[in-house]
This record gives sequence, C-alpha cells and structure tokens, in this order.
Amino acid sequence: MRPYQQVAIVGVGLLGGSIAKALKSRNLALTVVGIGRSQERLEKAINAGIIDKGFTDGTRGLEGTELVIVCTPVDQAADRIVEAASVAAQTAWITDVSSTKSEIVAAVETALPDAPFIGSHPLAGDHRSGPEFSQADLYVGRTVVITPTQRTAAGLVERATEFWESLGSRVELMSPEEHDHSVAHTSHLPHLVATALALATPEACGRLVASGWLDTTRVAAGEAALWRPIFTTNRTEVIEAVARFRAQLDRLADALDRNEGDALEQLLVEGKRIRDALGN
Amino acid sequence: MRPYQQVAIVGVGLLGGSIAKALKSRNLALTVVGIGRSQERLEKAINAGIIDKGFTDGTRGLEGTELVIVCTPVDQAADRIVEAASVAAQTAWITDVSSTKSEIVAAVETALPDAPFIGSHPLAGDHRSGPEFSQADLYVGRTVVITPTQRTAAGLVERATEFWESLGSRVELMSPEEHDHSVAHTSHLPHLVATALALATPEACGRLVASGWLDTTRVAAGEAALWRPIFTTNRTEVIEAVARFRAQLDRLADALDRNEGDALEQLLVEGKRIRDALGN
Repeated sequence: MRPYQQVAIVGVGLLGGSIAKALKSRNLALTVVGIGRSQERLEKAINAGIIDKGFTDGTRGLEGTELVIVCTPVDQAADRIVEAASVAAQTAWITDVSSTKSEIVAAVETALPDAPFIGSHPLAGDHRSGPEFSQADLYVGRTVVITPTQRTAAGLVERATEFWESLGSRVELMSPEEHDHSVAHTSHLPHLVATALALATPEACGRLVASGWLDTTRVAAGEAALWRPIFTTNRTEVIEAVARFRAQLDRLADALDRNEGDALEQLLVEGKRIRDALGN
Repeated sequence: MRPYQQVAIVGVGLLGGSIAKALKSRNLALTVVGIGRSQERLEKAINAGIIDKGFTDGTRGLEGTELVIVCTPVDQAADRIVEAASVAAQTAWITDVSSTKSEIVAAVETALPDAPFIGSHPLAGDHRSGPEFSQADLYVGRTVVITPTQRTAAGLVERATEFWESLGSRVELMSPEEHDHSVAHTSHLPHLVATALALATPEACGRLVASGWLDTTRVAAGEAALWRPIFTTNRTEVIEAVARFRAQLDRLADALDRNEGDALEQLLVEGKRIRDALGN
C-alpha cells in the first residue's frame, strides 16, 4: 500500500491510539492527526509519540486528510462521521471502528447519502481503555468486519480491505445487519452474562475465586460508559440472544432440578463440542 | 517438612500426576506410588517419571504408605477414601482433591467415623485432563481449601496445612458446607453459564468469535464426565446459585427490554466494580 500523506484519527483512545501507532511503525502514513475534545489529552498523545498533531476543531484537523477513522464511543460515531464527510469528502474516505453497525451506517446514509464512508469493526480490544494501553500490534491477526451496503461508493471495499490488511488483520465482509446479529451472540451476550455472573457472586465467596470465575467474568471489567451504547444500539439482537441463552440455561437447570445426570452430561458434552469447535 | 517415606496417589490424572511431580521435584517423598485401574496407564506414568511404582490393587499399593491422596473423579472419591482408610489407617493419613466436599466427607465419616481423613480442595486445574498435562508447579500460589469437621482427628489440620504449603499453596480452612456454598458460585455456576453460552451460539456466528467469547466460555471445554458428578454432588447449592444468577440477568434484560439506558449502565458499573474487586 502506498503510504497515506495524512490520516486523521477521531478519538485517540485504545483503538484509535493503536491504529496511530501501527500506521507510524509500519510507515503507512506520513502524518497522523489526532482529533479529540481535550487539548490536554491530545498533547499527552503527541508527547507519547502516538500522533503527530492534535486538534480539538475537526474542521481544521481534517484539512488535507486522505483517510479519517472515527474511533469514538459508539453513540458519538455517526455524528463524527457525518461531520468528517461534510468537511473532507473531497479528499478523504472515512471509516470507523464501532462495535455495532446497523444504526450508525443507516444514520450516516440518511444524513449524507453520498458520503465516502464504509463501516469497519475490528474484533480487537481490551477490557482496559485509554491511549496508554494502545499497542502497535493490536490489530495483527485480528478479524476486521467491513460492512458495505448497496449505497457504498465503488472502490471503498477494496480500499478498506487493503487498509486493514496492511495493519495485519483478516477482513470479513458482511451486511451491517448480519454483523450486528453475529456480535450480539459472540460479544454482547457474553458481556451481559459475565456482568450477571459478577453481580450474582456473594461477597463472602470472594476468597474462593480462581481462574474459572476470573475467565468467565473478565469482560465485565470493560468500561460501562463504552458498553452502554453498544447494548442500546443493538437492543433487538441482544434481546433475542438473551432469549436463546435463557432457553439453554433452562435446559441445564431443569436437568439439575430433576436430578437427571444423563441429560446434564449430554448437555455438557454438547457445550464442550461447540466450545472446542470454535475455540480451536 | 520431613520427607515422607512413601506417598500413594489414587488416580494419576492431571491433579494426581501434578502432586506426584511436585513431591519428586521438591524432595518431599522418597517413593511415590500410583494406584489406578489401568496397568497400561500406570506403566506410562512410571515411564514418564511421574510415579515410582504402580498398582491396580489398592491393598498392595498402600502397604507402608504414610499419606494417601485420592485424586479420582468426585463420584468415586468417598469409596476410595474408605478403602484406603480400611487398609492403611495404622500408618497413613488420608486426604483428597475433590471439587465438592459435603457429600464425600459425610460418606466417609458415616462409613468409618475414626478414619484419619481430612478433605482438601486445591483451586487448581485446567480444562484439559490427564497425566500428560500434569505440572510440578500446578499448586504453586494456588488456594487449597481444607475442610475439617468436629470429627476430624487431632493434628490433621496441621499436617494437611503443612503438606499443601510445602507444595507452594495457600491454605484456607472452612466447613465442607461453607466450601460447597462458595464454589457453587465461584466455579460451578460459571461452568453452567459458560456451557449455556456455548450452546446458545448459532453456528453461523462462529467466524466472529473473538477473545470475549473465548474467555467467557473457556471452562465449558472441561470434561463432561468429570463435571457431571461435581454438579450432582452439589445440586442444592448450584440450584440456588442459578436462581441468584437468573435474578441478576433479569435485571439486565429488563433494563434492555424497557430501553432504560441509565439503569443498564448502573448495572454494568456495579458488575465491573465486583469484577475489579475480586479480579485484582
């Protein structure tokens, strides 16, 4: 990939900071601009070598930019994408890293049908947040879902694929709706279940917490303010996933209630089969 | 600790094999005897240097033994402990590593009220099983629960504490009932929930599985045949833990159903607080 003259990262947190670091370390961008609300945090990011320049004013920061990547919390993404497209559509194409896609993509396409935008969702992250945890290799070997629609401008699928592959990621294409359905099961439901498990743990049992509990609840340590809009923008799919989960939990609990050891073991065998198949 | 002349491990799997390796590598036993049902597997364990001698006949294998550690699946433990006590009570004290304690301890105390037995449960293990995964340092830094009762012979708490500490573990004392109540929440419920999550995952979503799903479901990869008796011997406590979990999941799902973002975020904050407090 020819290096970009200038890339703008809107929201320099864990995900945005990691893209900035990857672009610099792989010589994929001559200048990386950070756009955020806090001048102080932008200066910290400049001093840490994560970005080259920082702007609290998106209009100024986007001048001459060839690529804008919106890495804000999910509930701010659509507005930031529309703003970027209003300013930089002549020179730049635009993507994001949001964990839900249908609402954002629809909002952007409604506001600016011709925006040079394509949605992305890298399946990468951490239960920690903030640029101090950003890593240049965060995206290496990770899956990135790209979600074109019938309105997506010609060439954007190729550009986005080339971009993420240049960061070491594997790209999957699917519609925003298929994406949101899948991550409801593979990410949002596990987060809800992990939270319920943490909430259900009596304080007095804490001293017997070991690796099983720690693994099963790990994602519940994620930032509540970041997860709230993920759930609220994918409500319908998550509600359906919870219903599927409850039905399976009921089967296990019924076997236990009725003391049906064979039925219980059969379910444990089947659960292990699925875990082993997907867990490679 | 003065080295034992001879220690017998009944059931040379992941847990028993790891104790054998730790005893040898730390010079805590001159001879480690393995007792199992398969002569072939005992010979493999001898050839792998895990045990010194192997016996399929417990009576012969326990001759001259000073300590017997029963490491069989949970549903066989009480019988093996009673057998060992019948043969070796003059020379040996006896413990086990079973994940549930109330049923086993009660069964042993009913069959042989004077058996020199004290229950142990090391919070160590792996979702893999078998002596090939055993490790000399499996118990280092782990918590081991010892469960004395009013009938436990004098001196056994000290002996068992000294033994596990010599393997690098931290010891916690509690009643069998308190133990079973706690692990229902910290281990058995997470296993049930992880299994339900694996069962609820549509096959088509598999390509979007990432670290969140993998962590949350990891324990579901455990051997069903080993977990079945853990659940069935701790049924009442697990059923109660499931009820607590369902109540918390209901709170989360209700907030989502009603689109109450503030209530949802408050629950996510509270779940994170508990996870952070216990997850150090």
